[in-house]
Amino acid sequence: MKKIRASIVGASGYTGGELLRLLHFHPAVEIMQVTSERFFGKYVSKVHPNLRKISSLKFSSLEDLEGCDLLLLCLPHKQAMGKLHFFMERADKLIDLSADFRLNSPEVYKKWYKEEHPHPEYLSKFIYGIPELHREEMKKADLISSAGCNATVTILGLYPLFKNQLVDTNKTVVEVKVGSSEGGNQASEASHHPVRSGSVRSFAPTHHRHSAEIEQELGFKEEEHLNFSVTSIEMVRGALATSHVFLKDQLEEKDIWKIYRQAYQDEPFIRIVKERDGNYRYPEPKLLAGTNYCDVGFALDPVSNRLVVISAIDNLMKGAAGQALQAMNLMCGFEETTGLTFPGLHPI
Amino acid sequence: MKKIRASIVGASGYTGGELLRLLHFHPAVEIMQVTSERFFGKYVSKVHPNLRKISSLKFSSLEDLEGCDLLLLCLPHKQAMGKLHFFMERADKLIDLSADFRLNSPEVYKKWYKEEHPHPEYLSKFIYGIPELHREEMKKADLISSAGCNATVTILGLYPLFKNQLVDTNKTVVEVKVGSSEGGNQASEASHHPVRSGSVRSFAPTHHRHSAEIEQELGFKEEEHLNFSVTSIEMVRGALATSHVFLKDQLEEKDIWKIYRQAYQDEPFIRIVKERDGNYRYPEPKLLAGTNYCDVGFALDPVSNRLVVISAIDNLMKGAAGQALQAMNLMCGFEETTGLTFPGLHPI
Amino acid sequence: MKKIRASIVGASGYTGGELLRLLHFHPAVEIMQVTSERFFGKYVSKVHPNLRKISSLKFSSLEDLEGCDLLLLCLPHKQAMGKLHFFMERADKLIDLSADFRLNSPEVYKKWYKEEHPHPEYLSKFIYGIPELHREEMKKADLISSAGCNATVTILGLYPLFKNQLVDTNKTVVEVKVGSSEGGNQASEASHHPVRSGSVRSFAPTHHRHSAEIEQELGFKEEEHLNFSVTSIEMVRGALATSHVFLKDQLEEKDIWKIYRQAYQDEPFIRIVKERDGNYRYPEPKLLAGTNYCDVGFALDPVSNRLVVISAIDNLMKGAAGQALQAMNLMCGFEETTGLTFPGLHPI
Amino acid sequence: MKKIRASIVGASGYTGGELLRLLHFHPAVEIMQVTSERFFGKYVSKVHPNLRKISSLKFSSLEDLEGCDLLLLCLPHKQAMGKLHFFMERADKLIDLSADFRLNSPEVYKKWYKEEHPHPEYLSKFIYGIPELHREEMKKADLISSAGCNATVTILGLYPLFKNQLVDTNKTVVEVKVGSSEGGNQASEASHHPVRSGSVRSFAPTHHRHSAEIEQELGFKEEEHLNFSVTSIEMVRGALATSHVFLKDQLEEKDIWKIYRQAYQDEPFIRIVKERDGNYRYPEPKLLAGTNYCDVGFALDPVSNRLVVISAIDNLMKGAAGQALQAMNLMCGFEETTGLTFPGLHPI
Repeated sequence: MKKIRASIVGASGYTGGELLRLLHFHPAVEIMQVTSERFFGKYVSKVHPNLRKISSLKFSSLEDLEGCDLLLLCLPHKQAMGKLHFFMERADKLIDLSADFRLNSPEVYKKWYKEEHPHPEYLSKFIYGIPELHREEMKKADLISSAGCNATVTILGLYPLFKNQLVDTNKTVVEVKVGSSEGGNQASEASHHPVRSGSVRSFAPTHHRHSAEIEQELGFKEEEHLNFSVTSIEMVRGALATSHVFLKDQLEEKDIWKIYRQAYQDEPFIRIVKERDGNYRYPEPKLLAGTNYCDVGFALDPVSNRLVVISAIDNLMKGAAGQALQAMNLMCGFEETTGLTFPGLHPI
Repeated sequence: MKKIRASIVGASGYTGGELLRLLHFHPAVEIMQVTSERFFGKYVSKVHPNLRKISSLKFSSLEDLEGCDLLLLCLPHKQAMGKLHFFMERADKLIDLSADFRLNSPEVYKKWYKEEHPHPEYLSKFIYGIPELHREEMKKADLISSAGCNATVTILGLYPLFKNQLVDTNKTVVEVKVGSSEGGNQASEASHHPVRSGSVRSFAPTHHRHSAEIEQELGFKEEEHLNFSVTSIEMVRGALATSHVFLKDQLEEKDIWKIYRQAYQDEPFIRIVKERDGNYRYPEPKLLAGTNYCDVGFALDPVSNRLVVISAIDNLMKGAAGQALQAMNLMCGFEETTGLTFPGLHPI
Repeated sequence: MKKIRASIVGASGYTGGELLRLLHFHPAVEIMQVTSERFFGKYVSKVHPNLRKISSLKFSSLEDLEGCDLLLLCLPHKQAMGKLHFFMERADKLIDLSADFRLNSPEVYKKWYKEEHPHPEYLSKFIYGIPELHREEMKKADLISSAGCNATVTILGLYPLFKNQLVDTNKTVVEVKVGSSEGGNQASEASHHPVRSGSVRSFAPTHHRHSAEIEQELGFKEEEHLNFSVTSIEMVRGALATSHVFLKDQLEEKDIWKIYRQAYQDEPFIRIVKERDGNYRYPEPKLLAGTNYCDVGFALDPVSNRLVVISAIDNLMKGAAGQALQAMNLMCGFEETTGLTFPGLHPI
Repeated sequence: MKKIRASIVGASGYTGGELLRLLHFHPAVEIMQVTSERFFGKYVSKVHPNLRKISSLKFSSLEDLEGCDLLLLCLPHKQAMGKLHFFMERADKLIDLSADFRLNSPEVYKKWYKEEHPHPEYLSKFIYGIPELHREEMKKADLISSAGCNATVTILGLYPLFKNQLVDTNKTVVEVKVGSSEGGNQASEASHHPVRSGSVRSFAPTHHRHSAEIEQELGFKEEEHLNFSVTSIEMVRGALATSHVFLKDQLEEKDIWKIYRQAYQDEPFIRIVKERDGNYRYPEPKLLAGTNYCDVGFALDPVSNRLVVISAIDNLMKGAAGQALQAMNLMCGFEETTGLTFPGLHPI
């Protein structure tokens, strides 16, 4: 197999580190450069200690970025979009892991990110990065914008229901529980261990920006609104969405099974998890650490016709680096699961 | 002050242990007996190691229970109700900490607990154990039924809104996050540390029994239904309810402030916690460990007129032993806060 | 009882916060001022959220510090010693909780802290702050230097053995496991939750400064040397010392019991914890959170005549604020246990 | 490559589950049977939920065990040894992961395990399962006894020093910190989450059985004795040994570097971890979760000539299943690292 040459821009963060780990073992990728201004010249294992004795790469500076086949952009929000042409001159294919190109509409972008987008003309050219929704487009794409972690876990939980128009949209309430790695690798008072440890922090009870992506991908109409909250809990990796939806029609559990099976039975990275007994009856994010799976389960309350959909991912994998690699595989014509077969650990 | 003589029935569990700790330091209570069949004859500190060198009590057997002024019943559900007359013969005042006498209606009891209540005539005689709702009744009561922990945290969060009839009842969605001590002190596969540790377990996405108490106390009509879910997270003590309610009228944040202040400004154990910045902008259960506080905060999403109410307690204190002691203080004419002034620790 | 007037200098840190909590409930103390330059003018509950609705104090600036009966100094190391006269002019009694006045010898100070002490003449005037070793001196003292947390837990574990000269000093190996609150309230990369969480960090395998205090108090000769290591583990509060000592003579377990009972049977804050079965056979720091106890246990390996002594404390209480308050009670003629009776929580 | 056919006996435990996960992805192994009496007939993913959608194997009963090339025995201690001939009739090659065949001497076995060994004649035929010590023997072996987890982490930390006879043997003190998965998958009061969570449990301050293996492999003489303690901390996977050794000669840090480099520079699964700064200066078990690495570091205290050696592993991997697979690779002539390349996650 002919290898592609890929570089990672902004490789010192958590997502960049995971991409580096994944690409290192990918049989069809040669890593060209990994950039970091802060750690320029240092070994990657200084920042990503799990790569000790595994990778002998050193960080380059962005200004030395050379041409290659594919660029994976892991810069902080609002940094990639300003340098879009710089990146496009260096590679034909781009996958951006920031929030810069996730929204199709410049108006919606401005509403949520509070400023004009510098390249509104590109917003519609980036494919939104969830392969389960945009697989065929990705196969032909040159520009992919990776999805937000909380958006991914919510969308994949709810997509079969919304696609089949089964839901009373406006009544939907989504509660995502997240770990501390979502905040990135920058220390702050909020991430100080004695403070963050054991906390149940109502991080974003309202106004979380991932709402915009979710509404877009689930097909909310302009006047419709998602009720979305994010709570940080004691966990490093992982996100679990508890989505409460009210069904338009009275469905039975077997109907729901059918809908989810139909949507996901051929998906390599989605598992329906719903068991009658045992310790793991519903999805558990800890079982997904290091994997690219999204586990989805549900419980029906027939009295109010409420369906509780439970979905879980590793925020750094299916919520970031893993999903970007899955998209890259599609974009480059590789087998979709290449480099993504780690099954997760138990116990953990 | 004349001391009352009190005994604790079922004192080897977590709630019994907390009651024992609290009563030990209560200036107006003399502990007569603490019963446990399993640990009969052993020192209480064998089971409650925090009481080493503090209490030299030994466990008695239930059959040796003597007369006293007040009995605190901490038996497993469905055990106290069968022995009601036995207990009433031994003390004029009873506080039952099980679920046996929380519901006023025998029909509702049967619906949720799947059997006929053996003493339906007493259901309406027990005062439901939240002092903030039933203070005056408690002062005259001989029978009090302590409230469920998840019910307490939800009811105290939502009571001012429901009392003022501000909420579109049926759309209410409540998500409670709980720690492992809610499951009691019996080891099981589900509580095995490698399994339970770090888990985000969708313990009861639907059909949690505390729904019935909450509906009763918030005044749900018969055809109305609470959408209630409980998720177990990495935590030993603590419960946090994230309650999503949809307001009937368009209110502003200052209106909500006013409603909560009006309801709670004189409450010794309720604090409104809502700050603009800092690490603890909303209630955090870890700060409440060992205290009898319920902290309540909120965030308003004006677009959908959704109010997210965040409330937190220590499930073993305000959710069990602490609240029972608060009720006891009222019932016995003591100062309401006696023995309940521990402020909690920081950091923790 | 006539109240004393006390002020806390440097009250925004973790130790200062604990002192503030304890003094607030102390019946014989009136808190005059609490200083913090960083939070000058703000309510203390902004920094110590457990004091919401409890304390309405605001932080003062050090330059506004007024005269009072007692000053508790919680400044960072090397800050109090430069201002010693400033403090002595404002109060007759000082308790310094930093490391500045713990060592009696200016030479030893210089060896461990790498600079000349500005007030060597005061080093011998401060009483080292462990009441179990220096109770009678404290009753007459005006200057007390609170002991280090890792030093306290080690010294109290080993004191009866060293006092009775039972130990082959140079072979002693001490391993202390500590929580993240030992690092104070300043966020750093090392305290970033995704990094610090779940870590077993060999923080100070050698050269920990508390060695000097321990050697001093256990009576090490100049040529003798303690083998001391500190490892940070997943925990916020708490310190547990596992001390391996080699006995000069072949003793049996009952001999050791006798030695510890003799030393500690009348101590209000030391418990000997050594049980044959159960979940808490040896000391556990989590049971001590918020308490002033030091629990001590031991296990004997007759083959090598090694005695493993296990001792545990809450580093912010018996390791800092609690022990300072115990010292204050002695210094001011109060009952030694006043304000320190919280027994700790179980489960936790 | 011709595949070997392997079966796992006792595959429902944690070690069996890890072996199953590893063998599933091993290119040269076909898994024939996995046995469990308790879960006979059930899918393996019912017990090992990380294998959902990955393995469709079901558990067999031991009595249906068929012939194959290699058996991996994961039975509880003292169960494999009674059935040795049964297993030898079914496969030419055996790897036993219990403690039954680790000790070479029947006398030493009896001393530590308190009964006569039923097959003393086989004790010397099993190769002790640490490849770094017994690689060449393994290549020719048919019988391998996998090493204990605490023994592995200690031996690999200290082996270069003992091999070079640099240590004052009798003064060696080893403190191992372990996670809850070491106790296996059977729930008990001791593993109950509210009890085990956050605990620092002095599990085996003396008399831990792994002492015997360590003494054997490090070449302790009969009259010499290891001072060994194990403490359980808040962690699921992982073991970290802090080994305090006293050097016979005054060595400098660069001498120690040389000794470790010489011993381990060609070892694929050992990394020397010792950095001047950063968050991961010494080995950290959490970084090793899921990997077969043993990380080793050290710190020298020249005053007492104490060397603190810090070594870490994943107890279920390098301490059990991973190391067994490494041994299997050697025994079967495969590349030693096959199936063991997972690098671990960061952050975690």
